[in-house]
Formats: sequence, C-alpha cells, structure tokens
Amino acid sequence: MAANVIIEEGTDFTPKFDSNGLITAIAQDVKTGQILMVAYMNKEALDLTIATGRAVYFSRSRQKLWKKGEESGHFQIVEQVLIDCDQDCIVLKVSVDQGQCHVGYQSCFYRKLTNGKLEFIAQKVYDPKAVYKK
Amino acid sequence: MAANVIIEEGTDFTPKFDSNGLITAIAQDVKTGQILMVAYMNKEALDLTIATGRAVYFSRSRQKLWKKGEESGHFQIVEQVLIDCDQDCIVLKVSVDQGQCHVGYQSCFYRKLTNGKLEFIAQKVYDPKAVYKK
Repeated sequence: MAANVIIEEGTDFTPKFDSNGLITAIAQDVKTGQILMVAYMNKEALDLTIATGRAVYFSRSRQKLWKKGEESGHFQIVEQVLIDCDQDCIVLKVSVDQGQCHVGYQSCFYRKLTNGKLEFIAQKVYDPKAVYKK
Repeated sequence: MAANVIIEEGTDFTPKFDSNGLITAIAQDVKTGQILMVAYMNKEALDLTIATGRAVYFSRSRQKLWKKGEESGHFQIVEQVLIDCDQDCIVLKVSVDQGQCHVGYQSCFYRKLTNGKLEFIAQKVYDPKAVYKK
C-alpha cells in the first residue's frame, strides 16, 4: 500500500507532528458538541493526555507543557480521542464542568462575524480574575 | 486597553495569520455539530470565504487556493464564522449535503483511538474514485 493509504485507511496510530514538533488538538464538548478550544500538543503532551485521561497541551507562548486546569481547576476529562485522515489533527471529546476559555467563557469561540465586526454570542460563565491569580 | 484585551474583548475582526500567512479553520456541521475537517486559510481564502459564503481554503501541499468542492462538488455553505479569543483560529459552521473527507467519509475524523490502535467509527458515504478523476 502507498504510504498515504496506510495513514488514511489503516489502524496504526501515527500522529504527524509539524516542524515544531506539534499537532493541532481541538477540544469538543462530548455532550453538546460545542467546540471549546484549539491548542497544540507535542508528543509528551499527547502521551500524557492518553495516559492520564486528562487533556495536556503544549503552550506555544510559554514553551512548556500545559496541563489544562492545573491553575484554573477547569480540567478536561477525555472521553474519546479522534484523529483525522492524514493524522495531523486530533479531536478530544471531553467532559467539562467549568468554563474552558481563559477570558471567562465556556468556549473560546464566543464571537461571530457579522458584517465585518465581531458580535458576542455568549455570556461569561466565570470571573477569570477570581480564578487566575497573578 | 492592553493589546490582548482589545483582541479578546473587542469587536474588531483581526484574524492573526501565522508566519506562513495561514490561520487554522475548522469546518463544523451546523446541524449535527460534527467536526468535519480542519484546514488552513490565507487572507485571500478567508476574504473569499466571507465574500462568497462558500468555504475556500489554502492547500499547503499544493500551495494554492482550494475552493472546497470545486473538484468533488462537495461544497460547504458557510452559515456562521466564529473566531476564538486570541483570534488565531476560525470555526466555520457549514451546511453540507455530501461527504466532506477526500477518503470518502462524511467527516475526516472517522477513527478513534482504542488501546493504542485506531478503530473505525464511520462508514464511507461516497466512493472517492468516482468523484476525484485523476
């Protein structure tokens, strides 16, 4: 079989990390289907996510592992790990019980484009100042 | 206001393209909530998506605009454009009436990780050989 057929039609889990060693990961609420956030994982983060059942990302800004919820308490319990055809993107179906966006919203996608401007489509569900201590 | 507050709490649409001039875009079925695919847009693709109401991506492998459906007929009608907190990722809520993955599935996420191997969770909804002429 050609390499792309093995990747696309096979059962081997061969996640493709980019030139920075990262793969895109989308967290989706397993109950509502809402897309909560998009982040990145290096191999260590992905291995830890699978081993622990809690989402672990790699923070590009801080250049270190980011155990989601370690500061905020807003963990993501991983119910399912999906991978796409070419194995360069992961969807985590997660259970959450708190807002997942650091700005205070349930999802990072709290604005929609309307006539060239952003319109807020959600209310904050927690106060980030009370959660993130400087 | 600090720059990040303007980006996160403001109403100006200021998508942040990466060093390759690309932004990540997720297509989500507006009816079912299923994540269909993840791709990338340059500014031209994003502008065309907004102007035409049909998803246009930028193919990294072919290094050119990719009007989704131009070859397969499997268009994505854009119902809503969402952007995340730091404006470096877009969700397109789309209406579709055909399989969206080039392998033949409705979604590119047709496999889940089970005990270190990939398990198929979907059936093909079309025959790619009949759709993509070489």
